[in-house]
Amino acid sequence: MLNKLLAEGIGTAFLLIGVVGSGIMAAALSPDNTAVALLANAIATGAILYVIITIFGPISGAHFNPAVTFAFLLRGEIAAGAALAYVIVQIAAGILGVWAAHLMFELPVLQLSNTVRTGASQWFSEIIATFGLAFVIFGGIRHAPAAIPTLVGLYITGAYWFTSSTSFANPAVTIARSLTDTFAGILPGNMPLFIVMQLLGAGLAVLVARQVFSTGDG
Amino acid sequence: MLNKLLAEGIGTAFLLIGVVGSGIMAAALSPDNTAVALLANAIATGAILYVIITIFGPISGAHFNPAVTFAFLLRGEIAAGAALAYVIVQIAAGILGVWAAHLMFELPVLQLSNTVRTGASQWFSEIIATFGLAFVIFGGIRHAPAAIPTLVGLYITGAYWFTSSTSFANPAVTIARSLTDTFAGILPGNMPLFIVMQLLGAGLAVLVARQVFSTGDG
Amino acid sequence: MLNKLLAEGIGTAFLLIGVVGSGIMAAALSPDNTAVALLANAIATGAILYVIITIFGPISGAHFNPAVTFAFLLRGEIAAGAALAYVIVQIAAGILGVWAAHLMFELPVLQLSNTVRTGASQWFSEIIATFGLAFVIFGGIRHAPAAIPTLVGLYITGAYWFTSSTSFANPAVTIARSLTDTFAGILPGNMPLFIVMQLLGAGLAVLVARQVFSTGDG
Amino acid sequence: MLNKLLAEGIGTAFLLIGVVGSGIMAAALSPDNTAVALLANAIATGAILYVIITIFGPISGAHFNPAVTFAFLLRGEIAAGAALAYVIVQIAAGILGVWAAHLMFELPVLQLSNTVRTGASQWFSEIIATFGLAFVIFGGIRHAPAAIPTLVGLYITGAYWFTSSTSFANPAVTIARSLTDTFAGILPGNMPLFIVMQLLGAGLAVLVARQVFSTGDG
Repeated sequence: MLNKLLAEGIGTAFLLIGVVGSGIMAAALSPDNTAVALLANAIATGAILYVIITIFGPISGAHFNPAVTFAFLLRGEIAAGAALAYVIVQIAAGILGVWAAHLMFELPVLQLSNTVRTGASQWFSEIIATFGLAFVIFGGIRHAPAAIPTLVGLYITGAYWFTSSTSFANPAVTIARSLTDTFAGILPGNMPLFIVMQLLGAGLAVLVARQVFSTGDG
Repeated sequence: MLNKLLAEGIGTAFLLIGVVGSGIMAAALSPDNTAVALLANAIATGAILYVIITIFGPISGAHFNPAVTFAFLLRGEIAAGAALAYVIVQIAAGILGVWAAHLMFELPVLQLSNTVRTGASQWFSEIIATFGLAFVIFGGIRHAPAAIPTLVGLYITGAYWFTSSTSFANPAVTIARSLTDTFAGILPGNMPLFIVMQLLGAGLAVLVARQVFSTGDG
Repeated sequence: MLNKLLAEGIGTAFLLIGVVGSGIMAAALSPDNTAVALLANAIATGAILYVIITIFGPISGAHFNPAVTFAFLLRGEIAAGAALAYVIVQIAAGILGVWAAHLMFELPVLQLSNTVRTGASQWFSEIIATFGLAFVIFGGIRHAPAAIPTLVGLYITGAYWFTSSTSFANPAVTIARSLTDTFAGILPGNMPLFIVMQLLGAGLAVLVARQVFSTGDG
Repeated sequence: MLNKLLAEGIGTAFLLIGVVGSGIMAAALSPDNTAVALLANAIATGAILYVIITIFGPISGAHFNPAVTFAFLLRGEIAAGAALAYVIVQIAAGILGVWAAHLMFELPVLQLSNTVRTGASQWFSEIIATFGLAFVIFGGIRHAPAAIPTLVGLYITGAYWFTSSTSFANPAVTIARSLTDTFAGILPGNMPLFIVMQLLGAGLAVLVARQVFSTGDG
């Protein structure tokens, strides 16, 4: 279990370094065109996702995401105690990742975001985004296990663009991003409802995947 | 058959979410440089295509496109009844995808596009674009089945750029995009000729592929 | 042989459609930032290269490039007559591809480029670019045949940026691009020396690869 | 050994051609948006890394990086004499690569950079960047050897963005980049501490990987 938790921890820390660090760099270099900044942010995030899922997948399953761990719990594929340990490590490591990004960019370590991200459209976006993420993972497990790192990396790179929330789709990421007042931040008060929607989306994916990716589905 | 139709439906809905949602986001963030917007749009579309073809391919064949279904019908690889069911689901799900994108971006659900896309050059573009798409699929089936998701994703990412129509290449996508007055829209009155050209291109691909990708072709 | 020539022809035509068409679109959409235009041009070209090499490789070897055919001739892996037929088809199909791109973008079909591309730096660029291209192909054949489409697609996407000539690296492409007065064009008078440098680079790659990628090289 | 050194040499030269050449081109074409320039620079670098690791990996192990060679020395996987020869060739070839890039862009061959890159944040960035690079390589060796070219290419493409130093992560690259007064340069006086941090990061990766990627790690 130690190695599983190390894998979840190092992976989630690098995920947040990727998301928050690239957001800081991109916003600094493209102050007048947010699309260029988001493109760099999305490509860097997709790239680091491919990397951490490839190297840690065989160790911990490469969740890095409490919503994904929750979905595997619903499917009976992880024990409750292990799931709890995973989630604690994911949240702690995500915060450490944000702080590391701040240190790398010479910013105050402790911050709180002021970026408002709220409203029915963004909540609906998070349901769709997390439904899609978990659903894609289940489809990959069923039909193309070796492609899962590419599937998740490309799905999130795309989902940055096709949801109004830019697809947080991950409660540990959401918590960590409330602690940075940079490009990727989210107002702490807006965090809880994002997380609720993410868990809803993940639960929905478990239900739909049970039907669509069943034995003999093809 | 239920799972095949679910696969075609969920896949086509996510395809339209990807195309229309990323178009809305990109145009909003890059009002002064349409190339950046189209680049984000093309990358997001290619990414979601890779994803849906990988996870749904083994279930339904991952058409998501009446022109592709029509081409398989011409090749005798799908029955007429199944083809009809596929097409109905593709069209309905594509429309639902557009509406979901509108909801995610806090836009009126029901819209009609005002973007004129017409003229011989664009029609010729749609013939070339759809010919290429179907031809690439047939080549992949013959020589590299495992690469089909990458082939289609990269082909369409490129084809956004090398055709003046930005390669709709899909009647369900064309119908759905007539119902959004955003970056990806097409005037409803311009829709029918786009679809005719797409079916022509797909039919042409069947003929040429019969010669080029024959047994013993290498 | 008919299918080999069809493969070389359709592939080279699509290569030029990709290069010239995406150049026209990108320059039109990003008049104030040439880097965005070149990025789109490079990504579209890399994408179409991956596609045509994957589907045509098992048929014709997927040269699409007289410098590559010349290199295989030097290696004794293609007969002189077949090489000549390949080169004729590549040149003719490349020109047809440019004309198809013009038709798709509502431009006069017959054009001559006015873009000056000359001087020692650009000639040296073409030697390096074509050396690298042929060398990468030989390395792929020796160590990773299944990766050749990705190798060539990524190499050219990169080489657009790291050479001052933007890496034509292909005599058929050079001839065809002299016939378009758009983003990707080259003054016809500058064409011959580009081709000489490309053949030099390809020949050099044959020599170096003979040493580096020999049996028991690892 | 000759072929191993040729592989390290040609590979490192092309790596620097990729990094420095694409930086020159990108900065020239996007003077007003550095993010676009860095995006092109990052994509070109990732692309050439994929290429050189794929074709040279089976020959020399595809280090191209004294920090990586140092890490393999610590792991006892390369002899000290061979490591020394690798490092000498990497440094010399990297310098030749920079000079080749200068020649391709009609710039003076001999230059010294004036770009200041110093301070605790950038040093910390280099530790993280090189730790991540070596750690990803070790994870790839353990769990996905065939994916190493993609892992390294995508890791570096992402790391350009999520570190304030843009992830040199390579002493041979650092030395070579001190010899170009262009986009990718580094003031020669800032070079030594970058290299110290890189070796620290690589050493740290050896320690952590010994625990995380141990036999029976999953």
